Amino acid sequence: MSKVRVGLIGAGRIGQVHAASIAENRDVEFTYIADVFVDGAQKLADKYGTKVTADPMELINASEVDAVVVCSPTSTHVDLISASIDAGVHVMCEKPIDLDIARVDALLPKARAAKTQIALGFNRRFDPNFSAIKNRVNAGEIGNLEQLIIISRDPAPAPKEYIAVSGGIFRDMTIHDFDMARFFVPEIVEVTARGANSFSDYIAECDDYDSVNVVMRGSNNELITIINSRHASFGYDQRIEAFGSLGMLTASNQLPTTVRAFSATQTEVADPYQNFFLERYSSAYRQELADFVAGIQSGKLTNPTYEDGREALILADAALESAKTGKTVSLK
Amino acid sequence: MSKVRVGLIGAGRIGQVHAASIAENRDVEFTYIADVFVDGAQKLADKYGTKVTADPMELINASEVDAVVVCSPTSTHVDLISASIDAGVHVMCEKPIDLDIARVDALLPKARAAKTQIALGFNRRFDPNFSAIKNRVNAGEIGNLEQLIIISRDPAPAPKEYIAVSGGIFRDMTIHDFDMARFFVPEIVEVTARGANSFSDYIAECDDYDSVNVVMRGSNNELITIINSRHASFGYDQRIEAFGSLGMLTASNQLPTTVRAFSATQTEVADPYQNFFLERYSSAYRQELADFVAGIQSGKLTNPTYEDGREALILADAALESAKTGKTVSLK
Amino acid sequence: MSKVRVGLIGAGRIGQVHAASIAENRDVEFTYIADVFVDGAQKLADKYGTKVTADPMELINASEVDAVVVCSPTSTHVDLISASIDAGVHVMCEKPIDLDIARVDALLPKARAAKTQIALGFNRRFDPNFSAIKNRVNAGEIGNLEQLIIISRDPAPAPKEYIAVSGGIFRDMTIHDFDMARFFVPEIVEVTARGANSFSDYIAECDDYDSVNVVMRGSNNELITIINSRHASFGYDQRIEAFGSLGMLTASNQLPTTVRAFSATQTEVADPYQNFFLERYSSAYRQELADFVAGIQSGKLTNPTYEDGREALILADAALESAKTGKTVSLK
Amino acid sequence: MSKVRVGLIGAGRIGQVHAASIAENRDVEFTYIADVFVDGAQKLADKYGTKVTADPMELINASEVDAVVVCSPTSTHVDLISASIDAGVHVMCEKPIDLDIARVDALLPKARAAKTQIALGFNRRFDPNFSAIKNRVNAGEIGNLEQLIIISRDPAPAPKEYIAVSGGIFRDMTIHDFDMARFFVPEIVEVTARGANSFSDYIAECDDYDSVNVVMRGSNNELITIINSRHASFGYDQRIEAFGSLGMLTASNQLPTTVRAFSATQTEVADPYQNFFLERYSSAYRQELADFVAGIQSGKLTNPTYEDGREALILADAALESAKTGKTVSLK
Repeated sequence: MSKVRVGLIGAGRIGQVHAASIAENRDVEFTYIADVFVDGAQKLADKYGTKVTADPMELINASEVDAVVVCSPTSTHVDLISASIDAGVHVMCEKPIDLDIARVDALLPKARAAKTQIALGFNRRFDPNFSAIKNRVNAGEIGNLEQLIIISRDPAPAPKEYIAVSGGIFRDMTIHDFDMARFFVPEIVEVTARGANSFSDYIAECDDYDSVNVVMRGSNNELITIINSRHASFGYDQRIEAFGSLGMLTASNQLPTTVRAFSATQTEVADPYQNFFLERYSSAYRQELADFVAGIQSGKLTNPTYEDGREALILADAALESAKTGKTVSLK
Repeated sequence: MSKVRVGLIGAGRIGQVHAASIAENRDVEFTYIADVFVDGAQKLADKYGTKVTADPMELINASEVDAVVVCSPTSTHVDLISASIDAGVHVMCEKPIDLDIARVDALLPKARAAKTQIALGFNRRFDPNFSAIKNRVNAGEIGNLEQLIIISRDPAPAPKEYIAVSGGIFRDMTIHDFDMARFFVPEIVEVTARGANSFSDYIAECDDYDSVNVVMRGSNNELITIINSRHASFGYDQRIEAFGSLGMLTASNQLPTTVRAFSATQTEVADPYQNFFLERYSSAYRQELADFVAGIQSGKLTNPTYEDGREALILADAALESAKTGKTVSLK
Repeated sequence: MSKVRVGLIGAGRIGQVHAASIAENRDVEFTYIADVFVDGAQKLADKYGTKVTADPMELINASEVDAVVVCSPTSTHVDLISASIDAGVHVMCEKPIDLDIARVDALLPKARAAKTQIALGFNRRFDPNFSAIKNRVNAGEIGNLEQLIIISRDPAPAPKEYIAVSGGIFRDMTIHDFDMARFFVPEIVEVTARGANSFSDYIAECDDYDSVNVVMRGSNNELITIINSRHASFGYDQRIEAFGSLGMLTASNQLPTTVRAFSATQTEVADPYQNFFLERYSSAYRQELADFVAGIQSGKLTNPTYEDGREALILADAALESAKTGKTVSLK
Repeated sequence: MSKVRVGLIGAGRIGQVHAASIAENRDVEFTYIADVFVDGAQKLADKYGTKVTADPMELINASEVDAVVVCSPTSTHVDLISASIDAGVHVMCEKPIDLDIARVDALLPKARAAKTQIALGFNRRFDPNFSAIKNRVNAGEIGNLEQLIIISRDPAPAPKEYIAVSGGIFRDMTIHDFDMARFFVPEIVEVTARGANSFSDYIAECDDYDSVNVVMRGSNNELITIINSRHASFGYDQRIEAFGSLGMLTASNQLPTTVRAFSATQTEVADPYQNFFLERYSSAYRQELADFVAGIQSGKLTNPTYEDGREALILADAALESAKTGKTVSLK
C-alpha cells in the first residue's frame, strides 16, 4: 500500500505530540508543517525534514499532502475542516470542533457529504486500558452495563488567559469525558450537571467552574457519572469503572514503575502518577494516528467522527445549561 | 464505673448482631430481650441468659434496664424512642427514625429536651477504614475537602415484600450514604438525584429505583457524589474517596484473606469480597455499641444523634423529590 | 458435649494471649492458672475467675483440669508434657519442645504411647491466609508444588538476655518457618543454611545470627526457601509464596485498614503493617485453641503434634550445622 | 556530536531486538548487518537499509563501522570481541562472554588493555524498575542493604537442543541474576546453590536442573537469594526485593494494562503478565543501547563491562560446583 502523505497544521504542544507519531508511523510520509508562528513550524520542520509554511491553506492545497492533522486553535477548526473537504484531503482534527454548536451544525451537511475521511481527536478512546474495558464490555463480560463512572482530574489548571477563551470546563475539559461516555453508551438521553468553585479565584472570575459533576442517562437506563477537577495534587487522575449485571471492570492510573517502598511509617508506597496527558496518553496518540492512517488506506475509518465531535459538544452545552439552571436537560 | 444494663428490642437479623456486641462488651450487663415474636426472643435470651418479653414497653420500663437498643421495624421507632425518654432510659435506635419526616419532626422537641442519650444506628461511621479517613481529613492531611465520592452497592436486592414497605431506596439504603456524607460534610445545601430501573422488574413495580446517583453540595462548595445499586455480582461494595486540595484518601473493599492467585489466564486474583454488612461492618457494630455505652457512662455521646437521623431523612426526601422532578433541591 | 476444663501454665505475654482465647471459647471452662511468679498468675486469675497456684504440678493434677496449655519457659516443656501424660491430662505446649533434641527424643516413646492428646503450638498453621493457601494447594489449584518461599522477619530483636538463652535463631525463630515448610512439605530430605550478622552487635556477641537463609529439599524435589531477619523497620513481615506447575498462590502482609493516601510526592500509600504476632496472628491463636478443644472432644487431634515439634527441631539443628560447616545436611 | 555508525552481528531473535533499538536511536547510523545465515541478515538489512554480509569479520573491519553489537552464538563471542579490539571498534556483546572461564580469562589482559569500549549485554540493569531501586538504595533510602531477593522464572523452557548446549541453567539463565546481584552487591564472597529437577524430563536428561536456588554472601554480610525456574504458568516472572536496615524496596511484575475485573467468584483480577523478555525488557534494551552509544561518545562507559561478564561467569561456575558438591564455595 502506498504511504499516506501527511501535513501538520499547528506546531504547538499538541502539534509536537502528533508530529512524533506522524514521523514514527511506517505507513506515513511526513511532508509539510504549517503554523502562523512560522518559527515554531520551521524548528519542527527541520527536525522532521518537511516543507514549512505560515499559511495552512497552502499546506492543505499542496500536491504532496493526502491528509492533514489539525492542531491549530479551536476557532480555526471549522474552516480548516471545510477547506480540507474542498481540497479532497483527509483530516484529523483536535477536539473540540468549535465552541459554538451553530458553527458545528452549519458544516454538518458538508461534513456528512464529504468523500474524504474526517476524524476527531478524542485520543482517550485509544488508551489501551479504556479500550480493553470497552472490548470486554462489548464481549459481554459484565453483562448489561448499568453504571459508568469516569473520574478525570488535571494536575493543575491552565492559566487564566487560556481559561478565559476555553469555552468553559464542560466544552474544554469534560468534552473528553462526554466522548468517553459515548464510547460506552452512544445514545445519551438526559444530562444533569453541577459545578463548583472550590479552589481557583481566577477560574471563578472567568465565570467558569473548577470542579464539576455530571450525571447522564443512556438509552438503556445506564447511569453515567463524570467527576472532574481542574487540579489534583498527585498528578493526572484518569480512571474508569464499568459496572454491569455480571461484574465490574476498572482502570486505574498508570505508574511509572512497579516499585513499592516500605518504611517505619508507611508501606506499599508507589511513585507519583504520570503527570499529564503527553505521558499518560502517549501510546493512545500513536494508536489514534495509526487508526486514522489505516482508515484512509482501507476507506473504513474507525476513529471518532465529525458527528461524534458534534455530539460531545451537545452534551457539553446541555451540561452547562443544567449547571446554570439546576434542571435536568432532556435530549429529545 | 458500674456496668450499663442493656435491653434489646427486636431479635431479628440486625438484633442478633447487636446482641453479640452487647454480650461481648465488658462494660455492659445484658439483661433483657423483647420481641413480639417471642420465640425468637426466647432463643436469643437462652443464649445470652437474659429475661425475655413479647412487650417492648415492659422491657423499657423494667427496673433492670438502663439503656435499650432498638432493632424493631421502622414504624415502631418513634414510639419506642419516646417511651424510652419517658422512662429515663438511654436509647440507640436503628436507622431510619421513621419514613415520614412529619413524625420525626413531631418528636424533635421532646428528643432535644431529653435528659437521656439518644443515638442513631449509623454503623458506618464506626468502620475503621472510614473513620480513619475522617480523622485524617480532619487533621488536614488532604487540605480542603473538595470532592467526596461514596460508592455503595448491596450484593442483592431485598425481596419485593421488603421493598414495598421500605420507603424507597433513598430512605432505606441511601440513608446510610447521606449520613456518611454528613459525617464528612455536616452542612449540605443542595441535593440533585437521578434514579434508574436497570435490572429489577419487581423494584420498578414498587415504583422504586434499583440504581441511583445523588450529587450534593456542601456549605464550603464540596461536591459529594453517591452511587448506589441494589445489586453487585461481586459482593457488598462499600468504598469512599475523599479528594482535597493537597491529596486524596481512599478506602476500598475488605478482602477475607491476603491470598492472590496466578495462573495461565489471570494474575493477582483476589477472593470475593465480604458478602454483606454483618461481615463487612462487624467491627463497626461492636465499636458503635462501645461508643454508645461510653457515652452513657461519660454523659458525652459521640454517636450520631436523633438530629443526625432527621437530617439524613431530609436529604433522602430531597433526593426523591429531585429524582422525580429533575430539579436540584435547595435546602434552606 | 461437655465443656473441656482448661488450665493455663505460664502467665507471661504468650500466656495472656492464650488466656483470652480460652476465656472466649464456648466449649471451654477456664478453671486454673499456674505461674511460679504467682502475682502475674493471680492478676490473670482475677480477670478470668479461675483458681491460681505457683506450682504447675498442682494444676496438672487438679481434679478440675482436663487439659493444659503450657506457656512456661522452654526448659520446663518436656517435664510438663511428661507430667500431663502421667496425669491423663491433654496438653497443648508452646514451641519449641526443648532446645536439646536428646531430651525431646527421650520423651518420644512416652509421647507416642500417650492416651491423651499432645498438641504443639505452631500457631501459623491456623492463620487464615496460610491455611487457605494450604487448602488450595491440596485441592490441586497450582498442580505440583515446586517451590515454596517463606519470608519471616520480626519487627525488632528480643533483648540480649533473651537471645542468650534462646537456643539461637534457628531453634527460636526459624522453628516456626520449619514447621510452616513441613505444613506444605511434610518430608524434608536435606537442609542448607547460611547465617549473617548484619546489624546487631549483641546478637553476634551471643554467637548467634541476626539474619538467616535456609534452603531445603522436599521428598518430591520441592525447593523450599526460608528468609529471616530479626528486624524489619516496617513491622512484622510474614509472607508465603507457593509456586507450582500450574500456578502460584501468595499471601502478603495484613494491613490495619484499606485506606490509601495520595499526595504530590507519593501515591497508594498504605498503613504500617500490623506490628507483631499478637495482632498478626490473633485469629490464628483463637483457631489453634478451638482445634485443640475440638480434637479433645472428638478424639481426633488435627493440631501439629509432638512429632511435628520434634521434626522442626531436627531441621533447626540441621540448619545450624549447615550454617556452621558450609555443607548441605542430608536427613537420612 | 557525530553519529556512531553501528553494525549488528547476528540477525536472530535477540539481534532483531537490538536492530530495532539501533534503528530508532537518533545518535546512531545503522550501517551493516552480518549473519552466517545471510538470508535472515538480508531481510533485516532490507528493513533498515544497511549493508549486509555473511562474514562478521568483514563487518568488523569495514570502514563504515565504529561499533558492533554482537548477538551471534555464545561460542563466537570471545573471538569477535578480540577482533573488534584489533579493529579499533567498540563492542557490545550479548551474555555470556563464553561458557568456559579459561577462554574468558585468556582474553582478559587484552580486554583490559583495549582502547575501545567493551560492554556486556546484561539488559536488566537498564530496566526502569530495577534501576530505580538501585538508585534509591544508593541514595540511602533503606539504610544498609541486608538482604536481596531475586525471583526470576521463564515462561517455558527452551527446547532440548538449546538446553543441551546452553552451558547449564547457572551459566545460561541465572547468569542474569548473578549480574543483578552484583549490580547491588559488587563484591560477593561465597556462593551456595541447590538445584532440582521438578518438571522437565529432557532437562534432566541433559544433566541440567530446571529449578535452582542460590544463596550468596556479599562483602558487607549481605545475604542474597536467587530463585529460578525454567517455567512459570503465569508468564515471565521477574521480581526483586531489596531489604535494608531502614526499609524495603520491591519491584513486581509489569501488567499490560491497569484493568481489574470483578465477578461473582473473584475480584481485582489482573491481566496475565507480559510474557517474555522482549516485551518485559523492551525499554531496557533501548536504554542499554543508548548508554552504550553515550559511553562511546563521552569515552566513559557506564554499561556492565567485560569484567562484569567474567565475574558473573565465575559465580555461575561456583554455583554449579556448590550444587554438585553440597558445599558452600568461597570466592578468594
